[in-house]
Amino acid sequence: MGAMKPSPISPTIDLDKNGAQHGHLRLPYSRDDSAWGSVMIPIAVVRNGDGPTALLTGGNHGDEYEGPLALFDLARTLDAEDVGGTVIIVPAMNYPAFRAATRTSPIDGGNLNRAFPGKPDGTVTEKIADYFQRELLPRADLVLDFHSGGKTLDFIPFCAAHILPDQALSARAFAAVEAFAAPWSMKMLEIDAVGMYDTAAEEMGKVFVTTELGGGGTATAATVRIARRGITNVLKHASILAGEIDRRPTRWLDMPSGDCFCFAEEDGLFETMVDLGGTVRHDQVVARIHPIGRTGVAPQEIRAKMDGILTARHFPGLVKAGDCASVIAVAG
Amino acid sequence: MGAMKPSPISPTIDLDKNGAQHGHLRLPYSRDDSAWGSVMIPIAVVRNGDGPTALLTGGNHGDEYEGPLALFDLARTLDAEDVGGTVIIVPAMNYPAFRAATRTSPIDGGNLNRAFPGKPDGTVTEKIADYFQRELLPRADLVLDFHSGGKTLDFIPFCAAHILPDQALSARAFAAVEAFAAPWSMKMLEIDAVGMYDTAAEEMGKVFVTTELGGGGTATAATVRIARRGITNVLKHASILAGEIDRRPTRWLDMPSGDCFCFAEEDGLFETMVDLGGTVRHDQVVARIHPIGRTGVAPQEIRAKMDGILTARHFPGLVKAGDCASVIAVAG
Amino acid sequence: MGAMKPSPISPTIDLDKNGAQHGHLRLPYSRDDSAWGSVMIPIAVVRNGDGPTALLTGGNHGDEYEGPLALFDLARTLDAEDVGGTVIIVPAMNYPAFRAATRTSPIDGGNLNRAFPGKPDGTVTEKIADYFQRELLPRADLVLDFHSGGKTLDFIPFCAAHILPDQALSARAFAAVEAFAAPWSMKMLEIDAVGMYDTAAEEMGKVFVTTELGGGGTATAATVRIARRGITNVLKHASILAGEIDRRPTRWLDMPSGDCFCFAEEDGLFETMVDLGGTVRHDQVVARIHPIGRTGVAPQEIRAKMDGILTARHFPGLVKAGDCASVIAVAG
Amino acid sequence: MGAMKPSPISPTIDLDKNGAQHGHLRLPYSRDDSAWGSVMIPIAVVRNGDGPTALLTGGNHGDEYEGPLALFDLARTLDAEDVGGTVIIVPAMNYPAFRAATRTSPIDGGNLNRAFPGKPDGTVTEKIADYFQRELLPRADLVLDFHSGGKTLDFIPFCAAHILPDQALSARAFAAVEAFAAPWSMKMLEIDAVGMYDTAAEEMGKVFVTTELGGGGTATAATVRIARRGITNVLKHASILAGEIDRRPTRWLDMPSGDCFCFAEEDGLFETMVDLGGTVRHDQVVARIHPIGRTGVAPQEIRAKMDGILTARHFPGLVKAGDCASVIAVAG
Amino acid sequence: MGAMKPSPISPTIDLDKNGAQHGHLRLPYSRDDSAWGSVMIPIAVVRNGDGPTALLTGGNHGDEYEGPLALFDLARTLDAEDVGGTVIIVPAMNYPAFRAATRTSPIDGGNLNRAFPGKPDGTVTEKIADYFQRELLPRADLVLDFHSGGKTLDFIPFCAAHILPDQALSARAFAAVEAFAAPWSMKMLEIDAVGMYDTAAEEMGKVFVTTELGGGGTATAATVRIARRGITNVLKHASILAGEIDRRPTRWLDMPSGDCFCFAEEDGLFETMVDLGGTVRHDQVVARIHPIGRTGVAPQEIRAKMDGILTARHFPGLVKAGDCASVIAVAG
Amino acid sequence: MGAMKPSPISPTIDLDKNGAQHGHLRLPYSRDDSAWGSVMIPIAVVRNGDGPTALLTGGNHGDEYEGPLALFDLARTLDAEDVGGTVIIVPAMNYPAFRAATRTSPIDGGNLNRAFPGKPDGTVTEKIADYFQRELLPRADLVLDFHSGGKTLDFIPFCAAHILPDQALSARAFAAVEAFAAPWSMKMLEIDAVGMYDTAAEEMGKVFVTTELGGGGTATAATVRIARRGITNVLKHASILAGEIDRRPTRWLDMPSGDCFCFAEEDGLFETMVDLGGTVRHDQVVARIHPIGRTGVAPQEIRAKMDGILTARHFPGLVKAGDCASVIAVAG
Repeated sequence: MGAMKPSPISPTIDLDKNGAQHGHLRLPYSRDDSAWGSVMIPIAVVRNGDGPTALLTGGNHGDEYEGPLALFDLARTLDAEDVGGTVIIVPAMNYPAFRAATRTSPIDGGNLNRAFPGKPDGTVTEKIADYFQRELLPRADLVLDFHSGGKTLDFIPFCAAHILPDQALSARAFAAVEAFAAPWSMKMLEIDAVGMYDTAAEEMGKVFVTTELGGGGTATAATVRIARRGITNVLKHASILAGEIDRRPTRWLDMPSGDCFCFAEEDGLFETMVDLGGTVRHDQVVARIHPIGRTGVAPQEIRAKMDGILTARHFPGLVKAGDCASVIAVAG
Repeated sequence: MGAMKPSPISPTIDLDKNGAQHGHLRLPYSRDDSAWGSVMIPIAVVRNGDGPTALLTGGNHGDEYEGPLALFDLARTLDAEDVGGTVIIVPAMNYPAFRAATRTSPIDGGNLNRAFPGKPDGTVTEKIADYFQRELLPRADLVLDFHSGGKTLDFIPFCAAHILPDQALSARAFAAVEAFAAPWSMKMLEIDAVGMYDTAAEEMGKVFVTTELGGGGTATAATVRIARRGITNVLKHASILAGEIDRRPTRWLDMPSGDCFCFAEEDGLFETMVDLGGTVRHDQVVARIHPIGRTGVAPQEIRAKMDGILTARHFPGLVKAGDCASVIAVAG
Repeated sequence: MGAMKPSPISPTIDLDKNGAQHGHLRLPYSRDDSAWGSVMIPIAVVRNGDGPTALLTGGNHGDEYEGPLALFDLARTLDAEDVGGTVIIVPAMNYPAFRAATRTSPIDGGNLNRAFPGKPDGTVTEKIADYFQRELLPRADLVLDFHSGGKTLDFIPFCAAHILPDQALSARAFAAVEAFAAPWSMKMLEIDAVGMYDTAAEEMGKVFVTTELGGGGTATAATVRIARRGITNVLKHASILAGEIDRRPTRWLDMPSGDCFCFAEEDGLFETMVDLGGTVRHDQVVARIHPIGRTGVAPQEIRAKMDGILTARHFPGLVKAGDCASVIAVAG
Repeated sequence: MGAMKPSPISPTIDLDKNGAQHGHLRLPYSRDDSAWGSVMIPIAVVRNGDGPTALLTGGNHGDEYEGPLALFDLARTLDAEDVGGTVIIVPAMNYPAFRAATRTSPIDGGNLNRAFPGKPDGTVTEKIADYFQRELLPRADLVLDFHSGGKTLDFIPFCAAHILPDQALSARAFAAVEAFAAPWSMKMLEIDAVGMYDTAAEEMGKVFVTTELGGGGTATAATVRIARRGITNVLKHASILAGEIDRRPTRWLDMPSGDCFCFAEEDGLFETMVDLGGTVRHDQVVARIHPIGRTGVAPQEIRAKMDGILTARHFPGLVKAGDCASVIAVAG
Repeated sequence: MGAMKPSPISPTIDLDKNGAQHGHLRLPYSRDDSAWGSVMIPIAVVRNGDGPTALLTGGNHGDEYEGPLALFDLARTLDAEDVGGTVIIVPAMNYPAFRAATRTSPIDGGNLNRAFPGKPDGTVTEKIADYFQRELLPRADLVLDFHSGGKTLDFIPFCAAHILPDQALSARAFAAVEAFAAPWSMKMLEIDAVGMYDTAAEEMGKVFVTTELGGGGTATAATVRIARRGITNVLKHASILAGEIDRRPTRWLDMPSGDCFCFAEEDGLFETMVDLGGTVRHDQVVARIHPIGRTGVAPQEIRAKMDGILTARHFPGLVKAGDCASVIAVAG
Repeated sequence: MGAMKPSPISPTIDLDKNGAQHGHLRLPYSRDDSAWGSVMIPIAVVRNGDGPTALLTGGNHGDEYEGPLALFDLARTLDAEDVGGTVIIVPAMNYPAFRAATRTSPIDGGNLNRAFPGKPDGTVTEKIADYFQRELLPRADLVLDFHSGGKTLDFIPFCAAHILPDQALSARAFAAVEAFAAPWSMKMLEIDAVGMYDTAAEEMGKVFVTTELGGGGTATAATVRIARRGITNVLKHASILAGEIDRRPTRWLDMPSGDCFCFAEEDGLFETMVDLGGTVRHDQVVARIHPIGRTGVAPQEIRAKMDGILTARHFPGLVKAGDCASVIAVAG
């Protein structure tokens, strides 16, 4: 295999210049409604000399909002003079999905978080992944990638990092999670990490921190506050911003096995029997699915396979067989 | 004008029989994928002799879930022997919309709550309205119609009735609201009541009680508990069920003028600055709209036009110009 | 009410000229993809002097094919010299639906057979109905309108006329049905005749004959032969063509009540237990609906409410609650 | 019939205030993706005292661009001090269509120019028409409404007014057309004027001037210059602006009969044989339609039914039977 | 190339347990309307000890119904005590297609019968193929895969196997076809066998039997009876069920060359001139295609290229250039 | 890697026979609406003995019309006796796109001009590319491929060839461009030539000539005349037709760098400030983008990065961020 093709993406700003710059990653995209069109992904770079680089990203999935809200705001307000090093901000990584308010790209159905390392001559989503893989991730020391449950899941607000074979890297990531100071913190053991942005960063030895801060395709004032505080804390922790970290108590969780997940086996009207953060006992009915075609028929009951805390739930009022109904985690 | 055509809808059960019955309102609907098809709207009737009749309805808008959850459950569990009179339960009035999880009907775009009094030879939505207008509402003494914010709005949970010219009727409705015992209670002055189910019932002199119990196109265990308790309380209040009403403190609100409503004037990323139930001061920024095409641009600020409580908010992460951003109510 | 507006439809041929002419009914239709576009409905007129006029129509529903096949063929081959009077042929009345292969119009969802008397300033479908109502039906002595089951129903092949209050007119129609000589013949008592082409013609005192010749959105060589023979026979019966009628034995049927119709109450996989023309006994299982989400669950059984002949059935492999599953008729 | 309902549309600016104001006509529109949403139609009013009022409109059809381009520009640059009277500017009347770049509304399929006088409780398009009918047209002395061919037609650039029964009004309109000074000017005799904005204005005795300035769903620098000059000239002609009219030679045309229009009778690949403005002789082939399914088949030829000038043509590369292929006008 | 990834599909039942079990193959599928969703493919296993294993499959194409009807029924009624060995039943292999009533998957457009051997990290359809390739086919001794013509073709009912290089395997398959006892039996020589389920099974040395039992997107009572009898017969033939095979006469056919297939070269209204099972002579007109845009134009005639039996035909009323119009087979 | 699979495409005519033949390239394409369907790409071959072969193609992008118009016409009228050698004519290479009037294929989204060398077992678009790559291009000495701007761009009419490393081949191509005699001629240096039909031909050492003759998804009588004259001239230049070349003056242009291209950075209403062929100065405003949500806001200005001629422009009235707004070329 010869040399890889260069990325077709070109930034409209100089990524290495000092000061605050606002521009786009321009990705040529020929299509029926624009023969010579492009996808324009907003990017800001705030740099002040040679310190460490943080890469802050939101909109990896297009229907998750705490990250984009905190990052558009940060990009507008962060003063280069306050920075020691570089902050690269991409508030809406999968911009076509973000603009369409969908998890995956409306152009190619691509789930950006399963498209790494990407391809320079692949789909639009794969081209975005490739640009992060080969251009942005190598610049970073620390990556903070914001997620929430999106339109179809809702989570208790937590910050997380992965349990990795490289224990030193893992420990550095958990220290950053601790600094983030979300109400909950999660140690994640990824079963199937193939194609993830997380994995791409971790394999380069970067400190990678992620979140689930809520969901339902919206954000609250409270969850956005958590995101804002988390960013500032992590940048201070990384010595890119000066000042005291605003530390808050956090409760550590962990998801030890596949028994954490409860799946629906029927279509119907979804009823969670426990609200997020509630305590669950083994065999307790955590959710019910009511048939909708007629009255008088018993609902399907979904029972917990373990004790724990209700950490995530199916969000929409209707549910389909195969959907994840409930997620239970245990104190970590 | 001669006699009106009969409704094309036929119930598959006898609405006047004692005991609990489960069936459908069958509405013939010829279409490309079923030449001789029908819409089948689930209905249950639980009757025990000649007492008062309550008509309980959900799914007037198809993406609101507390009502359907509480009513499918009630229909399955209500024992005719416990009833004195009749309980008619239609958990999903606009069944095509409910099945599609949309506010309005996917068949004809009809907003059922603006389609009254309906037409027997109109659209599918108008035929449903006509059947309630001429067949079900006349049977009822009391109507309890469940709403929530749906996929695009979120509300603090309240029960409500209208301030009507007929003050005696109004007073009876507010008494039923009091019995419902939601955390909040609302006195509504409808500016434009044309076409509403509420108005249709009130013009027949029926006690009409409604709710907004949450939103976002989902339901929580907490909001469903409010709905369940409310139903039982109201049926006891109406002497259809026996037993003590489970009274809870409620905070009365009222929406005195158009200044309660704040509208977006830009498209963009929506940020509520206050969470539901929060206190708001006149001229405070209650929401912001961030442009999404580039970083570094100031958001539009939406300011409160009065002091009050944040009662509802735009739910999805993105917003369009013209959308209702925030609703503020005052202590009633 | 003043004078009605004239029809916007203009024929591109002279409807009163002797000889065979082929042209269109041009209906102006402004739309996004053609600001000054039109719907062009094919029409042929074959005339030879002042004898009676037959109006032959197919494609009233756009997914029924015996009529269009026999009529496009007739229009091409009918020699004016063989005709005594006038034959007006519209093989595809609801041409937009016919072109889209759908029952109803893709433009406005209109079911042409429920759109009479139509409106000159209404939807495209209503404009077509109005043109037949005010321009073509008045010219006709006899109307032969072809139907089949379309994509979603399948019928035993029969020719039919209505039992009408005007018994003389009814008798003339049944005589034409007898001449048509389909394998089966039906006496229909229309419960709800509002909006039908049939009714429009009958109210003008025209002899109106219709058919159901098969279905499933296709035609067989055998059913097209029935249609061709029927046309020639009826034109001979009406003295428009000369020669002997090709008489064949037919079995008369009748549908005495709503008990003829069996409806599905579940969604699922449809299984007819009897084939078309088969004998059915009261309470026999005529069809079953198998749940498709899992194996091991009993199907819903649909039972005949009367003895008779299986005259029509749901056609597609899947079925929805509310669809007509089976139709049973009795010897007439 | 009692009093008509008030319009649901409310302007966000005071239409009667002096100075330049920019705002919206807010039309409440509840829908699946915004329960309490609105359509926001941009409007500007530039007023300086009590002189005459001109109502300037574009985007009556949403895919016609000279009007919106000239009017957004005018709204931004017109100085109230230069005005004597009032200029009301609505650059995109059918704003939902304009935003979707379609002739008709994506919400309801409405062709605004056939929706007058509209209805306050009708479709979104009918509500817009009603607001112009009852609120804006009554304020105007002069109406200038911009059209072009849209995506499916292309025109030589002309300004036009109607030949009306009220000859004095007609003469005043033609004088305004003369002032507009487009390369071509047209006297139009509307065959079917029902539902038009033009007719609504003329029936109130307003001077109504319109244009066709190009087409194809685009605008050129040249056609926008014509629009800009025309506006200034007409406002000077109406004494709302001061200064000399920039008069240019114009060639008057007229469309005497239905023979001006040539329609396609086949689907296929469209070839105009004459370019816009070209001279055409009776029986000349003005356009051809090539079958696209195979090579070697002769095209359908479309022949002129009169001598004249090629004034408009079908624009897209493919054509459907019934589309207007060519329009020929004669020197007026 | 290293080891292949494991399949992401997990069965919810133990495939090796004795007795009758009903469950799903759960295939994780993240998408916009369910971030952590799955496809749930119904599966039943009926096992009684160590005898041979039959793998019975339907819904390989989602619009073919004899297989699913016979297999859902079998799964519900087969008693483990009657079985000697194992029967694995997957009534709807391409479950997303089956649920959508389409030939190919609505998720990815995949034609499952061209997706073998599949990929564990490919599309949903490829993941299903991979699971059969690596998990289910290796368990089987005999595979019986049901097909019919689907919505767009109709076949005389036949059972079939392939003429294979491995003559012993071929002979065993033809013996199973003989046991199936359909009215017709076919020896197929597959020209292009790449990607087929058939080929995947045959290359593992499995006896592979398939069918075409009708079509049009429906099933009749008669064709389902053929499927039911065929299954029982084949399981008896394989000694998995005890008892006498219900042998019936069958007529063997064969499709010797590409001349068996007649293709449409025009779009239009399709007329078969011969019904299924009819005798055809070389050069006979077997089908005609009538232009639909106007009357009076001659149809395209499609002529047989050989003598034989009409074995399949285009089903829908309209046809497109390139569609297979007619298939002729010869006595084998 | 073993031998490549043969193409699934079969021509219905003998490509090597003398005389004029009209047929199709039949590409089997199984899909939901035709299980055994095909794509039928029209092709004509006009041959007279063993001279050179020209391959003439249009519809590489489906919304560009000068090529198809000139080539359908040529195929119908070219007399084999006038030819010395072979002319292969494919007026609509990407026939599915051409039929849908879209740039790319509606089947698979494929941009044929980026799909070379294609794959015999790939998508429909890749199968077409593969057939040209392995079957048609090898037969050609000269390739003339017609392009225009399509629906979203408009060009001044030019003929073009590439500046290639093989200078002799380049010179032969420029000589053919000179013979074509369009009003403008372009020397193109392709930055990213991967996947292009052009590159495929040039790598085989074929003389490859292309055009951009207009755009907007239409053609004018003038641009079709340029295409017709160009074909005849090039065939004469190649000694396939006899007679004198109709030489016309042409102006040579060249696009020296990426500064030729101006991109939009906002969504809005597009205004070109210069018309095609106009002279542009460095820093001149060549286009503006007006915000459409409100009046009174300044447009974005797009400025030329070099002196030159306006060679192409965005066509539709609305523009999206990332679209190519303007293209400037310099005298070559």
